[in-house]
Amino acid sequence: MHIYQVKNVWQHGRECLIHARENPDLNVAAPPEFGGPEGVWSPEELLVASVDSCLLSTFLFFADRSGLPLESYSSISTGRMEKTSEGLRFTGIDVSIAVTVSAEVTTERIASLRLKEKVEKYCPVSASLNCPVHLDLEIIPRAGAQGRSV
Amino acid sequence: MHIYQVKNVWQHGRECLIHARENPDLNVAAPPEFGGPEGVWSPEELLVASVDSCLLSTFLFFADRSGLPLESYSSISTGRMEKTSEGLRFTGIDVSIAVTVSAEVTTERIASLRLKEKVEKYCPVSASLNCPVHLDLEIIPRAGAQGRSV
Repeated sequence: MHIYQVKNVWQHGRECLIHARENPDLNVAAPPEFGGPEGVWSPEELLVASVDSCLLSTFLFFADRSGLPLESYSSISTGRMEKTSEGLRFTGIDVSIAVTVSAEVTTERIASLRLKEKVEKYCPVSASLNCPVHLDLEIIPRAGAQGRSV
Repeated sequence: MHIYQVKNVWQHGRECLIHARENPDLNVAAPPEFGGPEGVWSPEELLVASVDSCLLSTFLFFADRSGLPLESYSSISTGRMEKTSEGLRFTGIDVSIAVTVSAEVTTERIASLRLKEKVEKYCPVSASLNCPVHLDLEIIPRAGAQGRSV
């Protein structure tokens, strides 16, 4: 079993300060549309960032295990929160991932690794949500790319 | 509908850099037990921080609407991730919240506000998880406390 603990102290207004391990303390506030300030992470953005970075972490695990020579990885994740009959709820998160790998990797090899299915199945954060997480994953061999170790 | 978007770029090893709005960029990595470094926020901790801070934000909303004169609010949230037959999954998050309010607030008034039920029902992040979120909320009037505006 793995345990993840955070400690939080309300500061003022809609802002709080969150502490975990030796991490830099994180200032968090309600998003601007709910009375919070600009320029501060909101709980809603942290949720989307958690899903996005857990998918990345899961991808890196499988890419490393497959010996896939990665060149770059970037992603954009968009969460939707809507009013429902039970109150505000996240109704979906769309994640678009763009990966480049060394030029010598064939598209057949990329397809054979089935990374999208593995990442969708084994990302523990997105699998712990009750709203759909839709994943687009594009992996492209790039001329001149050398690959970098994970 | 509310939209929350983050952009993420893999840096090296198990680390990435996440950008949202005008927020400070957030360095995130796999937790140490999965090959990441110490001192960096993990996706798993961000999930727990998201739940914790969304409960705080929801509490502040209802406390403000009720005119409850808050003195302090702090919380500790502990997420459990366990191996299941489907892979690693969050199996529960326990949240312990300690609030102090002005001395003149009676325990009867505190009970009548039913803040625990409201926060549990209306926190959009914890309601979007498929694992149980267990909430302990203690609200204590404190001698000498003046209360602060939310």
